[in-house]
Amino acid sequence: MPPSSSITEALRPAVTPLLAALPSTVPFVAPDALERRSGRPLALRLGANESSFGTSPKALAAMRDAIARAAWYGDPETFALRARLAARLRVRPSNLAVGAGVDDLLGLVVRCFVSPGDPVVMSRGGYPTFAYHVAGFGGVLHTVPYRDDRNDLDGLAEAARRHGARLCYLSNPDNPSGSWHSGDDVRAFLDRLPPGCLLLLDEAYLEFGPDGTAPSLAADDPRVVRTRTFSKLYGMAGARIGYAIADETMVATFDKVRHHFGVNAIAQAGALAALDDAEHVARTLSAVAEGRRDYGMLGAAIGMPTLPSGTNFVCFDAGGAARARALVALLLEHGVFIRMPGAPPLDRCVRITVGTAPERAELSSLLRRLHAEGALAALDNHSPRG
Amino acid sequence: MPPSSSITEALRPAVTPLLAALPSTVPFVAPDALERRSGRPLALRLGANESSFGTSPKALAAMRDAIARAAWYGDPETFALRARLAARLRVRPSNLAVGAGVDDLLGLVVRCFVSPGDPVVMSRGGYPTFAYHVAGFGGVLHTVPYRDDRNDLDGLAEAARRHGARLCYLSNPDNPSGSWHSGDDVRAFLDRLPPGCLLLLDEAYLEFGPDGTAPSLAADDPRVVRTRTFSKLYGMAGARIGYAIADETMVATFDKVRHHFGVNAIAQAGALAALDDAEHVARTLSAVAEGRRDYGMLGAAIGMPTLPSGTNFVCFDAGGAARARALVALLLEHGVFIRMPGAPPLDRCVRITVGTAPERAELSSLLRRLHAEGALAALDNHSPRG
Repeated sequence: MPPSSSITEALRPAVTPLLAALPSTVPFVAPDALERRSGRPLALRLGANESSFGTSPKALAAMRDAIARAAWYGDPETFALRARLAARLRVRPSNLAVGAGVDDLLGLVVRCFVSPGDPVVMSRGGYPTFAYHVAGFGGVLHTVPYRDDRNDLDGLAEAARRHGARLCYLSNPDNPSGSWHSGDDVRAFLDRLPPGCLLLLDEAYLEFGPDGTAPSLAADDPRVVRTRTFSKLYGMAGARIGYAIADETMVATFDKVRHHFGVNAIAQAGALAALDDAEHVARTLSAVAEGRRDYGMLGAAIGMPTLPSGTNFVCFDAGGAARARALVALLLEHGVFIRMPGAPPLDRCVRITVGTAPERAELSSLLRRLHAEGALAALDNHSPRG
Repeated sequence: MPPSSSITEALRPAVTPLLAALPSTVPFVAPDALERRSGRPLALRLGANESSFGTSPKALAAMRDAIARAAWYGDPETFALRARLAARLRVRPSNLAVGAGVDDLLGLVVRCFVSPGDPVVMSRGGYPTFAYHVAGFGGVLHTVPYRDDRNDLDGLAEAARRHGARLCYLSNPDNPSGSWHSGDDVRAFLDRLPPGCLLLLDEAYLEFGPDGTAPSLAADDPRVVRTRTFSKLYGMAGARIGYAIADETMVATFDKVRHHFGVNAIAQAGALAALDDAEHVARTLSAVAEGRRDYGMLGAAIGMPTLPSGTNFVCFDAGGAARARALVALLLEHGVFIRMPGAPPLDRCVRITVGTAPERAELSSLLRRLHAEGALAALDNHSPRG
């Protein structure tokens, strides 16, 4: 291409008023970006709740096979995967929508239900990508603070009624707190939402929760869309595939605007195989449970008590937002990537993905050393390097 | 999940007025769906302009390697790929936006520039997925018939002026006609669009066009967004990755609403490697050129002259829309998947992807036999089986 010409701004086509009013933000800074900033690779990648326990060997093999057919578009109807999931979940394939990860599906739900100016309710400091989508479609977000470090179901229902919300987002088990409500409580929560308000129930971490975390809901209940993912338990975040369970009319609505060829063929093959690997699932769940216990002991040892977790990560209470921020920065200086919740009261914590036993040993060794050296006590005075 | 409950429609949350007004359509019926309908696999898959010449061996190897890291999210900034592309294209990385295929990027451009009711211009019978996105964001599409089987640049510019279009879509080389305009003519066309109208120049097939098809445009020209893909020449349709070239402000606009983690990690690795495989590119381009010549001879032999093609597919003139439709159905009965353009004057044609030499031999054998048997002459009377 030739060098820049002197075309003036006067010729620039105008974006929509909605886009013009949007701020420039990204939901998350990626670990890759942190590596580029520091100029060195991360030693421990424990900030994005990826699965340290990896992808199912069966899924890996299926994806390697599928690569041979990479020249062909994937099936836009994700027929095989929906059939398998339907049998597993005892729903019809027409109750399932497959997307390029939960983020894609969250955007789709917001697009279908939120016009500019429409009120939406979620927890304050909840999943940033949901808030990003609400802003992106012009919705007006009303947030409800966490209560006792859990989603405040009473508060959310009340806010939904007060604001006449079109959409209410609930992550259960929750990111970033790690907390959960019982399925029965979620079910009762749904019944308390005002008529006409859709519940977007994000169950990305469902499998890590205790028995009884999944609410008993009819697949054709028009008041709720549930989202699930292959990114967490199944260790396929990089492949980009997740699904929604919803009534048929809802799925048909998604079909009106979704990217029909958007779910890549390799991920489809991997997801199908991952569902069959019960052994990998059991191994991962057991390893995560063990890791959560380890983290509990670590937190106690360094004076940072942990919050209960029904997910593959744990919040460590650093004793205040400034201290938590300083701890994230301090660990990054040591090549350890973690994150922290974005709003009070949870922003007194750091959020650490459950690593493998060797990863946990490395993290434990570092944190215990920093604790022994007084660096954790001095977090209030920490100023990030460079 | 429990069996259906008797929840009434009265409780159903309402979709946005925009969604409620949208019809239920899909841009394309996939070959996978055709196979499911017929209950048998396709013998020849020549309808979706996938690359019969496959994926670069280097890209295949890179994707197989990347699968080992499938548990990790891909880089949302696609830093490595943008850096490599920038060097190749002599633009800055900030002039590049990477998406999950061109379809994703087309949707993004429409979302950023088209508010409900805004006028948009494209050729009648042009790329259905673009029209799908325009409808999906409430735009009002004005179409201009093909002229001499090519995009009518005069007509498109005139329509853009007449309707005060916010956005004009041009595919060059064109799908579904296979035709192209010179880069100089495209450049002149851009200058004739009304001020404030964005040109969305889809260059998915650019590499297959003759020298001089790429217009000389400054990367910071705010009036145009160019889209390109790894789905066609690079044989990576199933991996889902493409990119847009635009000025920095435009890319920053996309960043406000795009799916930051939407491009899968495996495709990123594959695309990077594919760019380095000059040999595979040269081999594919040469094979496609040879295949187009073959198709030209085949068309002459069966009384269906071919249109000139600067792409990896060829239009065969079947002599009328009913005949073209019948030919698509007839070939499908023989296990051959092809498609046809959706509107006059091109709907007198069928569109056939350039296959490998063995695929072409099989197609040629079938079509010559049907011709000899009089089945092509009798297309007007053909009624599809079953």
